[in-house]
Amino acid sequence: MVVHMFVLGVDPGVSRCGYCVLEARTTGPAPVALGVLTTSPADPIHQRLAELQAELRALIAEFHPEALAVERVLFSVNVRTAMSVGQASGIAMAEAATAGCDVVQYSPNQVKEAVAGYGGASKEQVQLMVQTLLGLDEIPRPPDAADAAAVALCHLAMAPVRAAYGAGQ
Amino acid sequence: MVVHMFVLGVDPGVSRCGYCVLEARTTGPAPVALGVLTTSPADPIHQRLAELQAELRALIAEFHPEALAVERVLFSVNVRTAMSVGQASGIAMAEAATAGCDVVQYSPNQVKEAVAGYGGASKEQVQLMVQTLLGLDEIPRPPDAADAAAVALCHLAMAPVRAAYGAGQ
Repeated sequence: MVVHMFVLGVDPGVSRCGYCVLEARTTGPAPVALGVLTTSPADPIHQRLAELQAELRALIAEFHPEALAVERVLFSVNVRTAMSVGQASGIAMAEAATAGCDVVQYSPNQVKEAVAGYGGASKEQVQLMVQTLLGLDEIPRPPDAADAAAVALCHLAMAPVRAAYGAGQ
Repeated sequence: MVVHMFVLGVDPGVSRCGYCVLEARTTGPAPVALGVLTTSPADPIHQRLAELQAELRALIAEFHPEALAVERVLFSVNVRTAMSVGQASGIAMAEAATAGCDVVQYSPNQVKEAVAGYGGASKEQVQLMVQTLLGLDEIPRPPDAADAAAVALCHLAMAPVRAAYGAGQ
């Protein structure tokens, strides 16, 4: 029996929610799903949130990821962004927890350090490293998908650390 | 056959989420459920969000409210509050929309005006009016429950306006 270990990375947002399902293979992490879930700003917010919830639930049901990895929001963003990211990440975390996934949040610096080697890396450097690490022909588009891939890669890179120090928050 | 028309008011938050189910009776609005859902700050955030989601889903399943009424967040709050309110309100709105409820957001001024008669009313005046309008012996406690009752009352008060101008957002 082959056991597939998947991790779902999410870059949360209501208009655009990046996602990336990585499979941890002995040859390295391989992307098995990568893209962005979008909802229309023309629709009522509750309808958009229900759509996002259904799509995230379907992704989780399809891959049964062991963990959901999400980037922690910086407190330097504005209130409007924080509300929107809060709505999307709240739904993603609740769905994952209900489905029995582990949920781990990483700071932007942790993601940059794990993927690009240092916490001060630029967004472009991180995206280029995502491309390299996943053996892709080009940088994953849209950027939301690349960001979701980065946090999923961070989770896989941190696995030995978590194993040594216990499950992190 | 008696048709019960319920509205669910929610004052969203992760640590404390006020709720109030009002029944629209010919004799006036009557509270049939009033309280606060709490989660422990000692637990991981995803576990708390999953608990909140399950409790809100149970409330909606029990009363089949016609609508969920939520207070719109002011952009004067800080980013930490916005994230937390976003997480809780996002889950509440997605659950309600998935269950087929209408979802309507009201500004703090709309709630004050509908409940206390003017948009500049203090929190205490609003709570006293909630007590009076619902015929309660005392102000609903905790304040989160009173705030949830106020937005539910606002929704009922605005029903004729919505009927005249079409469903609002």
